[in-house]
Amino acid sequence: MVASHPDQTSGKSLDRFTGFSDGVFAIAITILALELTVPILSNPSSGQLWQAIRDEVPNIFSFTLSFVLIGRYWMIHHNFFQQLRSYDNGLIWFNLLFLMTICFLPFPTGVLGEYGDLGTAAAFYAAALTAASLAQTCLYTYALRRPQLLVSDVDLARERGGLRISVMMTAIFAISIPIALLVSATAAELFWLLTFLMRPVARRAGG
Amino acid sequence: MVASHPDQTSGKSLDRFTGFSDGVFAIAITILALELTVPILSNPSSGQLWQAIRDEVPNIFSFTLSFVLIGRYWMIHHNFFQQLRSYDNGLIWFNLLFLMTICFLPFPTGVLGEYGDLGTAAAFYAAALTAASLAQTCLYTYALRRPQLLVSDVDLARERGGLRISVMMTAIFAISIPIALLVSATAAELFWLLTFLMRPVARRAGG
Amino acid sequence: MVASHPDQTSGKSLDRFTGFSDGVFAIAITILALELTVPILSNPSSGQLWQAIRDEVPNIFSFTLSFVLIGRYWMIHHNFFQQLRSYDNGLIWFNLLFLMTICFLPFPTGVLGEYGDLGTAAAFYAAALTAASLAQTCLYTYALRRPQLLVSDVDLARERGGLRISVMMTAIFAISIPIALLVSATAAELFWLLTFLMRPVARRAGG
Amino acid sequence: MVASHPDQTSGKSLDRFTGFSDGVFAIAITILALELTVPILSNPSSGQLWQAIRDEVPNIFSFTLSFVLIGRYWMIHHNFFQQLRSYDNGLIWFNLLFLMTICFLPFPTGVLGEYGDLGTAAAFYAAALTAASLAQTCLYTYALRRPQLLVSDVDLARERGGLRISVMMTAIFAISIPIALLVSATAAELFWLLTFLMRPVARRAGG
Repeated sequence: MVASHPDQTSGKSLDRFTGFSDGVFAIAITILALELTVPILSNPSSGQLWQAIRDEVPNIFSFTLSFVLIGRYWMIHHNFFQQLRSYDNGLIWFNLLFLMTICFLPFPTGVLGEYGDLGTAAAFYAAALTAASLAQTCLYTYALRRPQLLVSDVDLARERGGLRISVMMTAIFAISIPIALLVSATAAELFWLLTFLMRPVARRAGG
Repeated sequence: MVASHPDQTSGKSLDRFTGFSDGVFAIAITILALELTVPILSNPSSGQLWQAIRDEVPNIFSFTLSFVLIGRYWMIHHNFFQQLRSYDNGLIWFNLLFLMTICFLPFPTGVLGEYGDLGTAAAFYAAALTAASLAQTCLYTYALRRPQLLVSDVDLARERGGLRISVMMTAIFAISIPIALLVSATAAELFWLLTFLMRPVARRAGG
Repeated sequence: MVASHPDQTSGKSLDRFTGFSDGVFAIAITILALELTVPILSNPSSGQLWQAIRDEVPNIFSFTLSFVLIGRYWMIHHNFFQQLRSYDNGLIWFNLLFLMTICFLPFPTGVLGEYGDLGTAAAFYAAALTAASLAQTCLYTYALRRPQLLVSDVDLARERGGLRISVMMTAIFAISIPIALLVSATAAELFWLLTFLMRPVARRAGG
Repeated sequence: MVASHPDQTSGKSLDRFTGFSDGVFAIAITILALELTVPILSNPSSGQLWQAIRDEVPNIFSFTLSFVLIGRYWMIHHNFFQQLRSYDNGLIWFNLLFLMTICFLPFPTGVLGEYGDLGTAAAFYAAALTAASLAQTCLYTYALRRPQLLVSDVDLARERGGLRISVMMTAIFAISIPIALLVSATAAELFWLLTFLMRPVARRAGG
């Protein structure tokens, strides 16, 4: 059923490649919650425990933010891989690079949750997401320039729209680094909200 | 074998979507055990180690409880996704929201294990499960209102029974929050047992 | 391709059920290594670091032991699930129970690694493996009594051999609990080696 | 569709075996990032947090190195398993052994990140990778000697090239152990770069 040629990198093999990527996404998104640590208190009252749980609210906020962002990266990856018909070594390495930036995210998420009022924490978080968005852009660009990797009826307009979103996400997170350092962490966090307006903008531009 | 149309969100793609969800469930249920930490003792006697292991019993209890609950959420999700024929962006987001509430559970599980005699801990745990059950209810409601997402021979009576269970689980965990705060943690925990009587009740009601 | 009947619990659905179980096994076996913690030393010499790594040798031993044991449980599970043609609610719950005992193992593994010279630690580890083997035995027994769940050309002699191994593993680990408490941890550990002789014995007995 | 014979270890079963291995790889590569811990500071200034993040740079370096190495082991494993048509107990055990060496890697990665300037840390890391490469070599050798396990049109020249790479990686990491101990950690780390020149060399030699 699966024909074997010298560069057999499609069919079942592509499924396995995709499954590995999905696994990494699923693990990275789930272990975000490990940054939420049970407070250590000796014989607390109900009120003290309540206070300790409330102290975790910034961590819960950064968990939620990273969960939504990784969820969105996964969705884009998911849609993108449906357009692939095969892959080569270059794609494997760009994909690994992208996955590495995703796996890295629990660390800046924890830093943001713990020290979210400091510009440095927000800048570090923004830098990590700039790297992830940039890696995604590279992966996209690489594949879109190689028609032999894409399914024959690929919707190029749609894929270019996806690439445009990646470029804009990279730009927004990169611009937010100096905002975090020079203005404030909160200003940078508000600026990140722009990334959720990307899809409609990209659609209109791509229209 | 997989036809490619503008909104190709079925077949292989649905399998991958399902696989991602299963992965998140499998990871969340497994890392529950990470809340069980090896006690740090310097040169303990056998008796001291035994005491330290016994001190972990509340943590083992909350691990077991969350394992069974996540296992049941997974089973409901598993049965529900078998009735899907395709999905859209709305379903993806409601599913991500639901998965997020599942990934969050190791944290309240740890709090319950550590401070289970405090009403606050039980209330926090109940609140987290209220959120998970509510997200499940939203996911169900969203899909059941869109027949184009369901397989043609869907057993609607059975699915509505599932929805009814979700609603009842949400109500039980929500009601247990004030019970935990005003009566006691134990009273709330006993109240949770009601969730295990849901299925037969829902069946009879749906009869 | 997948026919939908009231109790559709075969085909794709069985694959997904199997995939979930495999995921839990893969995660449980991998996070065993999280019990190996990087020693905290301030400005150590090469010699001091070497000593600190050597202090981890008991942990590495218990990691290896649990890895091999979980690997073997997975193999048995893997072979067993190949004989399934469908499943029901009872099988789901016995399977969840079995997976729960597997997920629990990193905890006694850590205890054994840290306090392996104490009889209590070995007894606790043995108790955890008794529970896992017993859950496996229940799962086996449940399925073998329901021919409608098995593939039509199931090799019953072989499956009964597998069941016999499960029963013997349960017995060996159970017997090693008093050995650990009354004789020594080392005696119990040597006794565990018997579990690796099970397969040939079961074969001969089943011959 | 899947025929059942006494040693049914191909088709769906091989897929599941492969999926389990992929899962272990995906988890091991993702939890590498857990070694990056959020610094604990009380009310730090932006500058102090920045310093604390910079202190994590060696950990980020070792995370990246191990990510790339595990990624490459996975790629080799991925290509290798495409050449399998079935498997036997021996292959299962060599595969488990290999996976165990992969799961072990987060520990030496953390040691290298924390104490990377010490020869002992680099030697320990090199020893762990020697073990992984050796296990990979055993797995390869075992399978290539059993033609009944391989697809009928296996490209033996290419597979022998892969085996040659494994042998060379084993040698390079083994040789770097005394380099780390007698010369310096940095010298060993530079020596590891040789492993990235393996593929072209193996190709030429295999030509």
